Amino acid sequence: MKPKMTLKRIAKELGVSISTVSKALHDNKEISQDNRDKIQAFAKFYNYRPNNIALSLKNKKTKTIGLIIPEIVHNFFAKVISGIEHVAKLKGYNVLIAVTNESFDKEVINMELLVHSNIDGFIMSLSKETLLNQDKHHLQETINQGIPIVMFDRVLNDIDCDKVIVDDLKGAKMATQKLIDTGCKKILLLTTEDFINIGKLRTQGYLEVLKENNITPDPDIIYRVSDMGNLERKQEAIEEDINKIFDRVSDIDGIFAVNEIYAITALNVARQRGLRVPEDLSVVSFSDGILSQHSRPSLTTISQHGFKIGEVAASLLIDRLSHEDEEKEYETKIVKTELIERDSTR
Amino acid sequence: MKPKMTLKRIAKELGVSISTVSKALHDNKEISQDNRDKIQAFAKFYNYRPNNIALSLKNKKTKTIGLIIPEIVHNFFAKVISGIEHVAKLKGYNVLIAVTNESFDKEVINMELLVHSNIDGFIMSLSKETLLNQDKHHLQETINQGIPIVMFDRVLNDIDCDKVIVDDLKGAKMATQKLIDTGCKKILLLTTEDFINIGKLRTQGYLEVLKENNITPDPDIIYRVSDMGNLERKQEAIEEDINKIFDRVSDIDGIFAVNEIYAITALNVARQRGLRVPEDLSVVSFSDGILSQHSRPSLTTISQHGFKIGEVAASLLIDRLSHEDEEKEYETKIVKTELIERDSTR
Repeated sequence: MKPKMTLKRIAKELGVSISTVSKALHDNKEISQDNRDKIQAFAKFYNYRPNNIALSLKNKKTKTIGLIIPEIVHNFFAKVISGIEHVAKLKGYNVLIAVTNESFDKEVINMELLVHSNIDGFIMSLSKETLLNQDKHHLQETINQGIPIVMFDRVLNDIDCDKVIVDDLKGAKMATQKLIDTGCKKILLLTTEDFINIGKLRTQGYLEVLKENNITPDPDIIYRVSDMGNLERKQEAIEEDINKIFDRVSDIDGIFAVNEIYAITALNVARQRGLRVPEDLSVVSFSDGILSQHSRPSLTTISQHGFKIGEVAASLLIDRLSHEDEEKEYETKIVKTELIERDSTR
Repeated sequence: MKPKMTLKRIAKELGVSISTVSKALHDNKEISQDNRDKIQAFAKFYNYRPNNIALSLKNKKTKTIGLIIPEIVHNFFAKVISGIEHVAKLKGYNVLIAVTNESFDKEVINMELLVHSNIDGFIMSLSKETLLNQDKHHLQETINQGIPIVMFDRVLNDIDCDKVIVDDLKGAKMATQKLIDTGCKKILLLTTEDFINIGKLRTQGYLEVLKENNITPDPDIIYRVSDMGNLERKQEAIEEDINKIFDRVSDIDGIFAVNEIYAITALNVARQRGLRVPEDLSVVSFSDGILSQHSRPSLTTISQHGFKIGEVAASLLIDRLSHEDEEKEYETKIVKTELIERDSTR
């Protein structure tokens, strides 16, 4: 018997990336004609069809949800998992989890793996690589083959599926306004690169509030952290960079950090520099995890309600799975953010 | 075609627990003769054999590891996952994760689910219920059917398999001795109930060091936290209990907490009571997670090296899978603990 062909195996056999195979099979012009021909011929020989990803086991319901997350270090994802598990348990579903470590290839491999495990549907937050490359064939194929996907937090807008997002723009505006309202004049933004939609929206919220308050944004104090790698290991590098910004711009009196790790890192820098929080420097974080509560000073933060996001995502998916015969419009649910005031602001 | 029978399905059909089914199929006398007969007859009718759990797919290698953990809130497990993923990636393995939420039934269901997903072997840390009930048929069956298991942290000694543990006894002794060396006379122990082997060993370490230092243990300041439920939600209750202990015993000057959450809770209580850490009260924690580093004061702690534990567990499993034809003795690897001194001790 020929082995079952997967995108991964084709890529390996031909010595190209999974992304290249995926694109070639969709006749994407980014791939040379020669390579497209070669890959398509190979796939044909091995009877690979894009819907291999979905197998033909659609009717064999297993009451299992496949959950794909980019990383496990952020407490936010732990909370989302708890919310999903909570609803799954109530509805008699099981959950299998796979971690992509921000890798596109891992995302594709994990999806194939879970599909072969006969999961009924996916809940996913996309990897940074997927967002950066905007490579979405694997997602569209899965949906086309009748396996529903619910995306949360890190979503691609042009994939038609159920989504759960937080109101990142509004949350960021609340955070920035809070700093301005308590007297901050020079607010450092610690954010992600723009290809991550949540980072981009939070940056936009910051900029909009500055404008509303007639403050001219200063590019020197907008720091887009490049962290494709492991967050924990990058922390020292981020700390160094923040220190350099303070060396250049000495009158920073507020920081808006788009996640807890950045905020905690900022607190470390403040401590090193002898800045008192919140007297000399106010800090607002995003996502209300265990770090925000237990850091000293505890962090004023925009709560993302990870548990709630998990609950909503699981409910959306299970609802769709339970009414598969009906044509149901895709929904985007917005989980509201909330300002939680603690000790890092005046 | 008859549906494939699983322990879960038999339990559901007969309206009994999975544990009852498991015991009945092993002719355990705890179950009445009548129930044993009924369950065995039902299982026979549906062709259920214990080795259903292992299917007959042993030769179909998927290079996938099934990882079963009790919960996801503790940063320790996130670190272990990172360590496992690290080695798995190097060796070309994938990892599917399932969470038991400390439930025995979920542990069995998740194992069946992952076996049906054709995982090659398991890495697991057992649920509290499994440890409490000492119910281990599902583990022994899986091993008997040729699917290897590597247990870590929460293990059952009398299951013959590869294990990765930390030196809990020695770690606890280091922690307690550190408190005594820095002048503490009245050391509160915050530990788990004894059926959790790691809690029991850490308690034992505490008691041994007291004895070595000619200090008589005071049962009033040994608090065995009962937390079968969600840790985060229990935190308030634990806080209240610690406060009551301080009300009764006012001269406590040291705390040894067997995990970070207990230690952080103790710091909260100290703050509420106006006790300065470390001047009035020293605190040592166990497991060096993100909380220990970022709490204020930062916590002196016994590092458990979660990442390392994950690496060792994955290496053990992959090594066994790669040499399946050889008879290899089972190993128990001990990952050394280490005292990391920070600001919560003098």
